[in-house]
Amino acid sequence: MIKVGIAGYGNLGKGVEKAVNAANDLELVGVFTRRNPDSVNTVSGVTVYSMDQAENFKDDIDVMVLCGGSATDLPEQTPALASMFNVVDSFDTHANIPEHFKNVDEAAKAANKTAAISIGWDPGLFSLNRLIAESILPEGKTYTFWGKGVSQGHSDAIRRIDGVADAKQYTIPVKEAIESVRNNERPDLTTRQKHIRECFVVAKEGADLQKIEDEIKNMPNYFSDYDTTVHFISQEELNKNHGTLPHGGFVLRSGSTGENNHLIEYSLNLDSNPEFTASVLTAVARAIARMNAEGWTGAKTIFDIPASYLSDKSAEELRATML
Amino acid sequence: MIKVGIAGYGNLGKGVEKAVNAANDLELVGVFTRRNPDSVNTVSGVTVYSMDQAENFKDDIDVMVLCGGSATDLPEQTPALASMFNVVDSFDTHANIPEHFKNVDEAAKAANKTAAISIGWDPGLFSLNRLIAESILPEGKTYTFWGKGVSQGHSDAIRRIDGVADAKQYTIPVKEAIESVRNNERPDLTTRQKHIRECFVVAKEGADLQKIEDEIKNMPNYFSDYDTTVHFISQEELNKNHGTLPHGGFVLRSGSTGENNHLIEYSLNLDSNPEFTASVLTAVARAIARMNAEGWTGAKTIFDIPASYLSDKSAEELRATML
Repeated sequence: MIKVGIAGYGNLGKGVEKAVNAANDLELVGVFTRRNPDSVNTVSGVTVYSMDQAENFKDDIDVMVLCGGSATDLPEQTPALASMFNVVDSFDTHANIPEHFKNVDEAAKAANKTAAISIGWDPGLFSLNRLIAESILPEGKTYTFWGKGVSQGHSDAIRRIDGVADAKQYTIPVKEAIESVRNNERPDLTTRQKHIRECFVVAKEGADLQKIEDEIKNMPNYFSDYDTTVHFISQEELNKNHGTLPHGGFVLRSGSTGENNHLIEYSLNLDSNPEFTASVLTAVARAIARMNAEGWTGAKTIFDIPASYLSDKSAEELRATML
Repeated sequence: MIKVGIAGYGNLGKGVEKAVNAANDLELVGVFTRRNPDSVNTVSGVTVYSMDQAENFKDDIDVMVLCGGSATDLPEQTPALASMFNVVDSFDTHANIPEHFKNVDEAAKAANKTAAISIGWDPGLFSLNRLIAESILPEGKTYTFWGKGVSQGHSDAIRRIDGVADAKQYTIPVKEAIESVRNNERPDLTTRQKHIRECFVVAKEGADLQKIEDEIKNMPNYFSDYDTTVHFISQEELNKNHGTLPHGGFVLRSGSTGENNHLIEYSLNLDSNPEFTASVLTAVARAIARMNAEGWTGAKTIFDIPASYLSDKSAEELRATML
């Protein structure tokens, strides 16, 4: 059994708990939190420890899955924990990946540990598909579309607007754009042509709805480059119809070998973004524990992990049944 | 530059020639054939040698791409050439993969060479997607659909029928079956419910068309388990409208994390089956040459190859641009 710890217990940590408990070869040792452990109750009843206690578990945990946020948690936590454990994180601030990789690589190598960063579906599975597709069809063009799904960052941005009580934002890929890519037309697409944004907003009593709508639609980076629709609804309606976190998307590579065109398409349609991301982290946790046992150390990304390590089946079984 | 040889010069070998010549980091050294080399003219003008001369190129070729057939060529050629070169093959007789792997592994290990077997899209990219999807979503069901595309084996089977001058057979996935999988219904599908077969047949003058059609539709293994349509057309029409080798297909995994459903879908839509397969072989040839240079030896499948090795870009560049 591979012994797993979870650092951070939000939606993602709960998803990892579920995935680890569902796996036959993984055993959940504990959840580590920066909150008061007594204030945290786990779904499966596994014990909660203070993050400060983690170092006492050096010999009892084969891999620690980090479930904190990319903005402030992971840049500190991943290098710190990689000096004690094999780790997996979902660091997703694309621009800072090279720096994060370097910090984690140094910490992990010094401790003979293995650390997978930026694991999930994007970065993660989508990145893997971009890389493989481009390597196979070097002449061509790659497209990534996200959605339909809830963007937490965009939902948060709306909630910060004066007069807004609550909000959910859906990112929706433009169907015509995907069809054009599927037809190997290789269009140049603007931001506006790729995705639309649909917002469901609960206004506070007496708020100026037109002002809120204008503020959303003109918000730089988040909305101003998109066609955005705003619906004002009640809190009850939001809770009832928009209470889950679905997501997904498409990676398409349209490429050529001379006069012949080829399309490679990868897509995800997820009821729960955090639970699926957690499932990816959990499969990679298995891989990282096994890779470390075989002598690989340092920071890794999804690009560096042979797929066979993700599975609980033996190489022989995989070749006989899945190749 | 990675120096590449091609063993076997049919459609697949010509595709590898095209892909190697299109790559910046690969150099084509020569084509090796069992035919009389003087009788073979290559598209790019690269020199043709007799297969017997291959051993003289031990120090001049970093990786040999095998483009023979799985029935009789590869079971002999891959172990033989793996004792002299790093090799890549597209062995696709699923039932014999474990035995082929063993034979190639022994030959390659003894010579400190690296050998990738069963590379292409199925086995190959489809296998990789089946493995990754199942590892991430252990609770669920995986489906593979092929087509729409030309099945060479089925076309050959029709051509062997008495009274048939020529034929092309298309394998077509049943749309309703794919939609049911996409809706996470996880149906149990019979062979008949998954694919239909459409045949375009040129009959010899005076042949009994009804007899041919009956013989096709009742052919065990090939057609009797499918809904099959037979169209009789002229040789001119066959050449004009059915002269290419398109193919493709879908791998779908419908899985659950508790009450939440997730769909992972991978699909290919290929104008030319042999040219795309050749492109996969070529990317893996790059990977195998690099893996051997780093000390990996023995037989490998697509399950064992970290994706980063497929690309001509550095690990740093991949992390900065594609993650």
